[in-house]
Amino acid sequence: MKYSAINLKEKFAKFSEHFSPKIIARMNDYHFKLGKFQGCFVWHKHTDTDEAFLVLEGEMMIVFRDGKVILKTGEMFVVPKGTEHKPFAEKECKIMLVEPAGTKNTGETNGDMTAEDNVWI
Amino acid sequence: MKYSAINLKEKFAKFSEHFSPKIIARMNDYHFKLGKFQGCFVWHKHTDTDEAFLVLEGEMMIVFRDGKVILKTGEMFVVPKGTEHKPFAEKECKIMLVEPAGTKNTGETNGDMTAEDNVWI
Repeated sequence: MKYSAINLKEKFAKFSEHFSPKIIARMNDYHFKLGKFQGCFVWHKHTDTDEAFLVLEGEMMIVFRDGKVILKTGEMFVVPKGTEHKPFAEKECKIMLVEPAGTKNTGETNGDMTAEDNVWI
Repeated sequence: MKYSAINLKEKFAKFSEHFSPKIIARMNDYHFKLGKFQGCFVWHKHTDTDEAFLVLEGEMMIVFRDGKVILKTGEMFVVPKGTEHKPFAEKECKIMLVEPAGTKNTGETNGDMTAEDNVWI
């Protein structure tokens, strides 16, 4: 079929790793990614870009050096470029990220949690 | 509060017009918009940009000159730049759009359905 819907539930069923977002769509130079978050992620920032989070199921927190935001199902937040942040989810949380193609999950902080940044599902 | 979640349900409660997307967030040069679609929109295209649709509640169709795609709750589609399309929804459908700031809802087709393109809610 020339035009096919992208079904988020079907895409989520294709992976189980935490903190390793997968690409499901491209819009110009941006990627839409799905992620499953659980536990503590690392402190990091993206110097050159904002990063949008939309919670599709569950609840997560984004901790900043001077505050935090709690995101429940159906809530979103855009982390401003250059802002250090640390995502956290007590239970598994399903999210959509929108950010420029090539954005690394750990930003400028390389480490064990740095995921492959170009995996489509 | 310095960091506040954007609650989509609360934002949807703030407007009722159809085919007149409202801005809820900015990420770099892009806007996240919420729209309520019902009925037939006009044929149009966006020459310079792709346009992302995510259905949050309900069902819509995007008709193309050579096909169509049906989007149900939890499904998305990116209309490629330059592609003529005509959104349609039999019943009211709630969607999120992601596109560059300043993108007009009717693209290059001005008319009665052209909405103000810079309304935040």
